[in-house]
Amino acid sequence: MAKNLTTRQADYAEWYNQLVQQAGMAEHSGVKGSMVIKPHGYAIWEKMQRVLDDMFKATGHQNAYFPLFIPKSFMSKEAAHVDGFAKECAVVTHYRLKNDPNGHGVIVDPEAKLEEELIVRPTSETIIWNTYRDWIQSYRDLPLLINQWANVVRWEMRTRLFLRTSEFLWQEGHTAHSTRQEAIEETERMLEVYARFAEEWMAMPVIRGTKTPSERFAGAEDTYCIEALMQDGKALQAGTSHFLGQNFAKAFDVKFLNKEQQEEYVWATSWGVSTRLIGALVMTHSDDNGLVLPPRLAPIHVVLVPIYKSAEEMQTVLDKTAPLVEALRARGLTVKVDADDAKRPGWKFAEWELKGVPVRLAVGLRDLENGVAEVFRRDTLEKGSLPLQGLDIAIAEMLDDIQATLYRKARERLAAQTYRIDDYAAFRQQLEDGGFIMAHWDGTAETEALIKEETKATIRCIPLDAPAEQGKCIRTGKPSARRVLFARAY
Amino acid sequence: MAKNLTTRQADYAEWYNQLVQQAGMAEHSGVKGSMVIKPHGYAIWEKMQRVLDDMFKATGHQNAYFPLFIPKSFMSKEAAHVDGFAKECAVVTHYRLKNDPNGHGVIVDPEAKLEEELIVRPTSETIIWNTYRDWIQSYRDLPLLINQWANVVRWEMRTRLFLRTSEFLWQEGHTAHSTRQEAIEETERMLEVYARFAEEWMAMPVIRGTKTPSERFAGAEDTYCIEALMQDGKALQAGTSHFLGQNFAKAFDVKFLNKEQQEEYVWATSWGVSTRLIGALVMTHSDDNGLVLPPRLAPIHVVLVPIYKSAEEMQTVLDKTAPLVEALRARGLTVKVDADDAKRPGWKFAEWELKGVPVRLAVGLRDLENGVAEVFRRDTLEKGSLPLQGLDIAIAEMLDDIQATLYRKARERLAAQTYRIDDYAAFRQQLEDGGFIMAHWDGTAETEALIKEETKATIRCIPLDAPAEQGKCIRTGKPSARRVLFARAY
Repeated sequence: MAKNLTTRQADYAEWYNQLVQQAGMAEHSGVKGSMVIKPHGYAIWEKMQRVLDDMFKATGHQNAYFPLFIPKSFMSKEAAHVDGFAKECAVVTHYRLKNDPNGHGVIVDPEAKLEEELIVRPTSETIIWNTYRDWIQSYRDLPLLINQWANVVRWEMRTRLFLRTSEFLWQEGHTAHSTRQEAIEETERMLEVYARFAEEWMAMPVIRGTKTPSERFAGAEDTYCIEALMQDGKALQAGTSHFLGQNFAKAFDVKFLNKEQQEEYVWATSWGVSTRLIGALVMTHSDDNGLVLPPRLAPIHVVLVPIYKSAEEMQTVLDKTAPLVEALRARGLTVKVDADDAKRPGWKFAEWELKGVPVRLAVGLRDLENGVAEVFRRDTLEKGSLPLQGLDIAIAEMLDDIQATLYRKARERLAAQTYRIDDYAAFRQQLEDGGFIMAHWDGTAETEALIKEETKATIRCIPLDAPAEQGKCIRTGKPSARRVLFARAY
Repeated sequence: MAKNLTTRQADYAEWYNQLVQQAGMAEHSGVKGSMVIKPHGYAIWEKMQRVLDDMFKATGHQNAYFPLFIPKSFMSKEAAHVDGFAKECAVVTHYRLKNDPNGHGVIVDPEAKLEEELIVRPTSETIIWNTYRDWIQSYRDLPLLINQWANVVRWEMRTRLFLRTSEFLWQEGHTAHSTRQEAIEETERMLEVYARFAEEWMAMPVIRGTKTPSERFAGAEDTYCIEALMQDGKALQAGTSHFLGQNFAKAFDVKFLNKEQQEEYVWATSWGVSTRLIGALVMTHSDDNGLVLPPRLAPIHVVLVPIYKSAEEMQTVLDKTAPLVEALRARGLTVKVDADDAKRPGWKFAEWELKGVPVRLAVGLRDLENGVAEVFRRDTLEKGSLPLQGLDIAIAEMLDDIQATLYRKARERLAAQTYRIDDYAAFRQQLEDGGFIMAHWDGTAETEALIKEETKATIRCIPLDAPAEQGKCIRTGKPSARRVLFARAY
């Protein structure tokens, strides 16, 4: 295990916090509630962005950019929306500083007070639907399929790196449609995009479902989500896709002329994932030695550590392994050759393990003589000797296998930690150990709130694939038509 | 010329404003001072980002992300810096809204007042150098080469789309070095990256130079810049690269142990380009028909407009041109097939001209019989018939030629509109017609201010390649050692 890293067993939360910082992914900043995303964390975000952006474009979306600031009056127009976000809004009230007449640096210039306060966007439905009013006149202008990559701010007192910070990075899709049906299809399509991204790229299995009314996005008619299970048995909401009905169209008076020349309100969706996914990635795969990254999102696929005793030996190793490095790069792999003479091999091994590089090669003169390289596989910690001949192919296959293995293990864990429970005492007992619990619920917000209060568990979602099944609510014994997914959550 | 577009001759500023909006690039938003970047404008920004990001990484930089908010006390630490930005800062003072007890929507909750106000970053030197203090201990931690893609806010009362808005998008590089010399080399290296990007990608020739002390970035020891000449004869600053000396290291107490184990302050640079480049691109090449885009930054390279009388004919045209479209795409070109049956060809021609697609193909049944396509070249407005056989190669070559031609024309315009003037009356006269003026200046801030007041012209830069040349200041007659570049500017 890594030297200074707390184990998951000892303190999972502390392990996560240390790992994110020690691996150079993020740290707390001098600004309360805001983090600094460091190069290794940002490189993973860039990989995620590239893949998601391609998926959005392949489904017909274009990117645009809307203002950071939202006039307070816009926020107020959709009643449920403002209720949901009012308590966590950063508010700009002035637009100028001036020198303190008492000589203490600068102060806010009281004469530069804004007539109307501006909210730093917590999400952009209001400013975007205010804009769409001018963009949409006819059914010919629909569907309008727009995505934005942006920063947003939701004030937080208690923060955790990537998982909960006042400012975070995300993408938010905002689409406009001429029919309810088309908007619902879009909502479901984008949920599936997120689920595929989570499973195929992050190697993180997810449960697709819809939120209960009390857990819906503020202003949505329906909220779809993907829920993942972290190694400590807690759930993490990894992405949401909202069917907004005509709520924002009505709030911002966005109408279109349909084919029959009748005026109708436009139907809306919005959907988003954020830098929170990086936290989910860490907590799904990593171990007590550090990060474990699925190859498809790893900023560096292979690190080569030369083993040598003299400068001359190092040069020999670098020269002889250059064709291999080139062959790996020709396969589209990112290879880091760590020839830093100030660090010892053992230090490098630990460092690249901590940073989650999927495959490490160590090559010395003896290896070259034998025509082999020492190959270390990060996910299983297996080490072995492989022939240099054809090693690029073997490594490419190994990376595919790492990706598949991580996903398989995560699926097995999810399956093993998903429980069907019908007894409330057993339910409470299981929650102490974590995991997903499929249980019956009577469908009322009151019971949902009661269970949350008594157990700290929330209904993560009503799984899309949950079969109809008559049962009795785990708390009240009232009738239930299907099981829902309970868990404690991040 | 485009139907509803003012000509450049009639009103250049209005032409620009209309063009940016009509071409779907940007528009003013419901938030004073902020714009909406629409999909066609954002697509150009994405192209620019991709190229610049690759260039930054090729020169050893990594991306990271720092907080949007900067505590007021950080801003105050570097005296010149706060002086430069205090008058245009958006200030967050509260973190919560609440329901108006008088029932008028929501109001700012007076109980949620921040102890210390937060500034929405106008630039990030302060928050970044506050962070670097923890990242840098030894010369082994240097150089530190970081770039950030972000939004920034500098309050503006009078805005112009892309050129001057309160919020804009940019990148800001912030590097830390162990020696003055290395930091200066970095400053110059990144200026050259910007100049190459402007010339090779934007097809926009630039003058490389340094700013006079009064035009320097607030907190810099030296500011390098690239200056371009717009079609109306006004200058536009297209990018800046600052040598910050040890100013921010001293303000934030960032020291390192050098190889001799002595403590020294760290040397700094910062450099940035913004969405302003999109405005520069428009004003460099576009004409009275709309946008003219250099192929290397065009979101769509080729548009194909089928000419037909019936649905069957359209299908025939699409089928027969499919191999061509595929061949073009195989060359990495983006091809739009405009098969929208609700629009007539003439309307489509005008639309894609307005949007600046470099090459347009029109193909009907007659053309297919003759084995040709009508090819329209956006930059020269030339139209001709070319054989379908080998057309992908011909178009690829044409795109290269368009890129080269745009650059050549812009260079010729720059050369033709650069004047060496030694007489103040002639200087003032020429400024009315626009252009770059190389003239002598006595080197004092007083004379610089006087000329600006009298003529609205500023010293854009002291060109790096300006030869030593004894002369007399154009305003005061005092001695001057070299000519500097004057112009009226955006």
